[in-house]
Amino acid sequence: VDPSLGAYPTAAELRPSRIFRLVPVARRDGELPLIEATSAAEAPPSGFGHVARALRRAVVGPPLRSTALVHERMRKLVALPVLSADALSSVAYGPEAMLAVLVLAGTAGLRYSLPISGAIAFLMLAVGVSYRQTIRAYPHGGGSYTVATENLGRIPGLVAAAGLMTDYILDVAVSVAAGVAAIDSAIPALRPDTVPIGVVVIGVLLAGNLRGVRQAGAMFAAPGYAFIIAIFAMTAVGLFQAAGRGFHPTPPPALPATRGISVLLLLKAFSSGSTALTGIEAISNDIPAFKPVEWRNARATLTWMIVLLLAMFAGTIALIHFDGVVPNGRETVLSQLAHRSFGSGLQYAFVQTATAAILLLAANTAYNDFPRVLFLLARSCHAPRLFLRMGDRLAFSNGILVLSITATVVYVGFSGNTESLIPLFAVGAFLAFTLSQAGMVVHWWRQRDHHWRQSALLNGTGATLSAIVLVIAAVTKFTQGAWAAVVVVVLFVLAALRIRRHYDIVRTATALQPQTMEIPGHVVSPRSEGRDVSSTATDGADPHPRSDTDEEAEETPVEIRHLVIAPVAVLDRPAMRALAYAASLQQPVVALHVSPSEAEAERFRCYWDTWGDHLPLEVVVSPYRVVVGPIVNYLASLHQQRPDLTLTVILPEIVVRRRTHSFLHNRTAPRLRRALRPLAKIVVTTVPFHVPC
Amino acid sequence: VDPSLGAYPTAAELRPSRIFRLVPVARRDGELPLIEATSAAEAPPSGFGHVARALRRAVVGPPLRSTALVHERMRKLVALPVLSADALSSVAYGPEAMLAVLVLAGTAGLRYSLPISGAIAFLMLAVGVSYRQTIRAYPHGGGSYTVATENLGRIPGLVAAAGLMTDYILDVAVSVAAGVAAIDSAIPALRPDTVPIGVVVIGVLLAGNLRGVRQAGAMFAAPGYAFIIAIFAMTAVGLFQAAGRGFHPTPPPALPATRGISVLLLLKAFSSGSTALTGIEAISNDIPAFKPVEWRNARATLTWMIVLLLAMFAGTIALIHFDGVVPNGRETVLSQLAHRSFGSGLQYAFVQTATAAILLLAANTAYNDFPRVLFLLARSCHAPRLFLRMGDRLAFSNGILVLSITATVVYVGFSGNTESLIPLFAVGAFLAFTLSQAGMVVHWWRQRDHHWRQSALLNGTGATLSAIVLVIAAVTKFTQGAWAAVVVVVLFVLAALRIRRHYDIVRTATALQPQTMEIPGHVVSPRSEGRDVSSTATDGADPHPRSDTDEEAEETPVEIRHLVIAPVAVLDRPAMRALAYAASLQQPVVALHVSPSEAEAERFRCYWDTWGDHLPLEVVVSPYRVVVGPIVNYLASLHQQRPDLTLTVILPEIVVRRRTHSFLHNRTAPRLRRALRPLAKIVVTTVPFHVPC
Repeated sequence: VDPSLGAYPTAAELRPSRIFRLVPVARRDGELPLIEATSAAEAPPSGFGHVARALRRAVVGPPLRSTALVHERMRKLVALPVLSADALSSVAYGPEAMLAVLVLAGTAGLRYSLPISGAIAFLMLAVGVSYRQTIRAYPHGGGSYTVATENLGRIPGLVAAAGLMTDYILDVAVSVAAGVAAIDSAIPALRPDTVPIGVVVIGVLLAGNLRGVRQAGAMFAAPGYAFIIAIFAMTAVGLFQAAGRGFHPTPPPALPATRGISVLLLLKAFSSGSTALTGIEAISNDIPAFKPVEWRNARATLTWMIVLLLAMFAGTIALIHFDGVVPNGRETVLSQLAHRSFGSGLQYAFVQTATAAILLLAANTAYNDFPRVLFLLARSCHAPRLFLRMGDRLAFSNGILVLSITATVVYVGFSGNTESLIPLFAVGAFLAFTLSQAGMVVHWWRQRDHHWRQSALLNGTGATLSAIVLVIAAVTKFTQGAWAAVVVVVLFVLAALRIRRHYDIVRTATALQPQTMEIPGHVVSPRSEGRDVSSTATDGADPHPRSDTDEEAEETPVEIRHLVIAPVAVLDRPAMRALAYAASLQQPVVALHVSPSEAEAERFRCYWDTWGDHLPLEVVVSPYRVVVGPIVNYLASLHQQRPDLTLTVILPEIVVRRRTHSFLHNRTAPRLRRALRPLAKIVVTTVPFHVPC
Repeated sequence: VDPSLGAYPTAAELRPSRIFRLVPVARRDGELPLIEATSAAEAPPSGFGHVARALRRAVVGPPLRSTALVHERMRKLVALPVLSADALSSVAYGPEAMLAVLVLAGTAGLRYSLPISGAIAFLMLAVGVSYRQTIRAYPHGGGSYTVATENLGRIPGLVAAAGLMTDYILDVAVSVAAGVAAIDSAIPALRPDTVPIGVVVIGVLLAGNLRGVRQAGAMFAAPGYAFIIAIFAMTAVGLFQAAGRGFHPTPPPALPATRGISVLLLLKAFSSGSTALTGIEAISNDIPAFKPVEWRNARATLTWMIVLLLAMFAGTIALIHFDGVVPNGRETVLSQLAHRSFGSGLQYAFVQTATAAILLLAANTAYNDFPRVLFLLARSCHAPRLFLRMGDRLAFSNGILVLSITATVVYVGFSGNTESLIPLFAVGAFLAFTLSQAGMVVHWWRQRDHHWRQSALLNGTGATLSAIVLVIAAVTKFTQGAWAAVVVVVLFVLAALRIRRHYDIVRTATALQPQTMEIPGHVVSPRSEGRDVSSTATDGADPHPRSDTDEEAEETPVEIRHLVIAPVAVLDRPAMRALAYAASLQQPVVALHVSPSEAEAERFRCYWDTWGDHLPLEVVVSPYRVVVGPIVNYLASLHQQRPDLTLTVILPEIVVRRRTHSFLHNRTAPRLRRALRPLAKIVVTTVPFHVPC
């Protein structure tokens, strides 16, 4: 080892140089210095990269240290609007979705809105009470995935995760769609631009979350309270007006019935309306965000949320009943109600603004929870490892990206139409509800402590009701889109299982075994013995393991026998440099040339005799003008003959300054590297040659 | 060198193995054997690759040897329809394009169709005679690019090439559009699918040309003759009918004039109609395809073509005049004429089929010529080198692909509407005509042999008329799309010049200089001395050359001083294998670890002390959780301190069997390789570790 390696420049020497971005922070007892990368260390070197980085920094902000990761604790008064946004905002689309189904049966269908709403309100109460139990049992946060996995097993856990993830994706799509609908109702001129506006909104959510927006502060509490106030004020004024009419409901406009009233229709209306429950689980996910005693505060907040949700839902339904409002394609029901209560003035604008704002906040809740579920899945090796990575803003950037892309696809695919998104929505949410609460029943039964029967009963009721809604939603809406949700859940579970299997196999293959560790990299581990760890290159069609030997068993440095192969296309400076590098390794070297014809081969041989520096040359004639294939086959056959040799392929590669110029040069080196990757015991070395343009 | 390398297996040993696809073909006087790759040598190894290859083979056919490249010579009777397809087929859209402009001025405008057609016919004659001169002067093929470059210089040559290439792209788009219009006219039900049908047609042309369709044989001659017969029969019947009416023209339907008659309108109509000339240069490009004496046969064929073109153009115009036909959006003019002459029976179907077939053939002409122009440009370093490559079917696959993609984009962008494509068309074609014929004038003046004045006069007339049409087309249609053609030509010329400059710089930088060749790779060549051949990595913002030393000057093998860096993320078998490889090179080795925190760093140190095989370890703390940046900066600073060392970075890389699984593993190795590419004297070595899934 070069002895001067420890000698690092002093701080004074460092400052003027822009290259040196490493600061030695500590030298512990004369050993090698500990080096710390400054924030500039992640700077990409190219010009294009600089622009991209500047843009990224402008949108996302400067990187944050890992130590900046602290939990900001929320008071109940702040937590209530922030964590309830998802649930409360459902009032903006749940009742409307129910009515949209009922009006298919004309005015007669609307008569069933009150009993169905009653059933939904009971469901809210039951599920809410059930989640109160979860908070007590999982004071560190009981997401559906965690509860289902711990109590029901791996597969139910994955099913719950799949349900949750489709729920979050649709939550973003539906909330944005409903929010844009609220805006469109107030400003009808914007209606043709529904899709682009929604895409921009998702883009803003993406950028904000990549910056690492925290759920905290008055900024996030304000829209929640504004919405609560707006709904209550609207209901109060509306009911006062209705009282003036002696509580005689305004008859709804006469509507033609396109379908008769049937049990199926009523069940459909019920399952559509029960989307008003989505988001009810948010508080139980985020208990550590409360001030101590966390679970107690969280439970109190949940109680308040349920009360508010019930009151707002009931108020909206009552107002719809008294005002005789029916859904139409142009204006949301909430906007119609606000018009009736307030006219078209400032108060109306306040209702619409608050609605749009809380729906945006509801979509943001999904941005907090979706990447967390992916993180948990990745931690248990059920999702690609890249979801484990925290971005430099301490947000799970990859999960945020995946959510944004899928939500955008769904939103655009359904043209931002809330009504057609609803059928997909209920399945995922109630799947997660059911499994989470069923898991809680098992939890209480396993613990069997004080009051366990009562808790299990409450959770059991919630689970049963959720399961009923789930079945109703899946069956009645199957043809309208619920099938897609079912397919996605099934595919997701299968993918998660396959990913886990892949990682298990890789872990077994790459882990250092106890025997191996005795003499590092020497003894072949018993587990991988006799198993074909290598994939034989040109023989992709033959997946059978070769039984003769584990070709890629570790060897100690002294056991490795080298042969260096230097493919040479033309005799130029890049090739000469590669040859010099190859020769400098002081191992046997063979140069390899692929020639389109024998005449060309002969000519190259003559050149080689003069300039080849006495290295042996092999020539392969390739009458089909291909270069990569013959080299790969040459190396594969060489390996077959001499499996003891480690072949090092030295490739010269012209590196241009501008990335846009790279298409001017042939891509043989990268193509060759890709083609050689699957081959056992072939090491590829790239010797760069930089041209000044 | 391993002495057993010369010992190749015998043929008997070879047969059972599917890996060994190399056949030793000759051992010349006891030296190393000459190896020939069989056609299987280009087989990609992976399973996906196998499927892709099978598909490719099914569409494109088996590879062809270079020796299969022979020119099939054509008799005049075959060459006439094959090489005239482009020109003659213009009759299908030229007159219609002219009328489409005239009808804007209502019925009154149509009166000008005869004089304008006369002018176009005169133009045909002049340009045709002019090209007769070119054939005599360039008996080996005088494309516009060749003629303009040789006689007028590099820039005019590039302008001509740009004109030609836009011409060919638009030729495909217009011919396909007109062909599909002929089909749509016969089967109106297909009209809504104009765009998809056209895209499929371009796809068929692409596949056919990737197979290496040769312009030969009766198969390609038939549609030409069929079209000639169809037009003549239609004209004869139509004129006979007109004679029955005493040659009194049927008055065209009364049309409202949207514009008054103006010189601008008439010039527009003229330039639209002169698209009937496109393709007139095809024969002069392809003289070697004729039987000897090539130029004489080619000239006779050109004469015949001009005569036929004139006759068909005149006949069509006369028929339009007598039948009072005007363009409408639903049916082509030719289809209307055929309906008048033949009714709707089999004869009508024959006319439409022949029209569609010859238009397809005309598009195919562009497929022959476009890649050839790109090849000539690439040969003179004005286009990326990849256009030099002949595919394994001996076709210039890359040029064919570029033509297909751009033509598809243009076709889809204009919704397959012939009329809106026409304004772009004339500019490119007449640009090439003008420069080619102007080049011929210079050619004759330079030679000044027998009759040179007469030849120069004929070419001069052609050049002048073409230039006039060019100016008319560019000016009158500027706002309708001609500006796009002008912009494309200018951008193309600029790009071609920049590409040439890039290649010139690269050639200077990579060429072995005379001094350099004395001792291979030792002496720095005088040309590159003092020039900054290296690009300094992390310092992309500093483009100033460093004057101290040419860092990347060649060294002889003994001069190269190595330091091997082995980045290690975790201690597993892939890392151990990479470390063993690094140590086996018997050069100084340093292991490098990037840790997110000091605590983690400490923990890794402990592991290292136990299992690190006594290699020295450097730890970089990266609190921003990035890995690639700190390694790059570490290496850059190391290089700055010790510019004499060649740093070899050894990267372990997990290779999965299925490409689809690769997203499950982090891409640190490829990202690091990309980030290290711009750094001087850093060689990257990848040690693969294959996992069994």
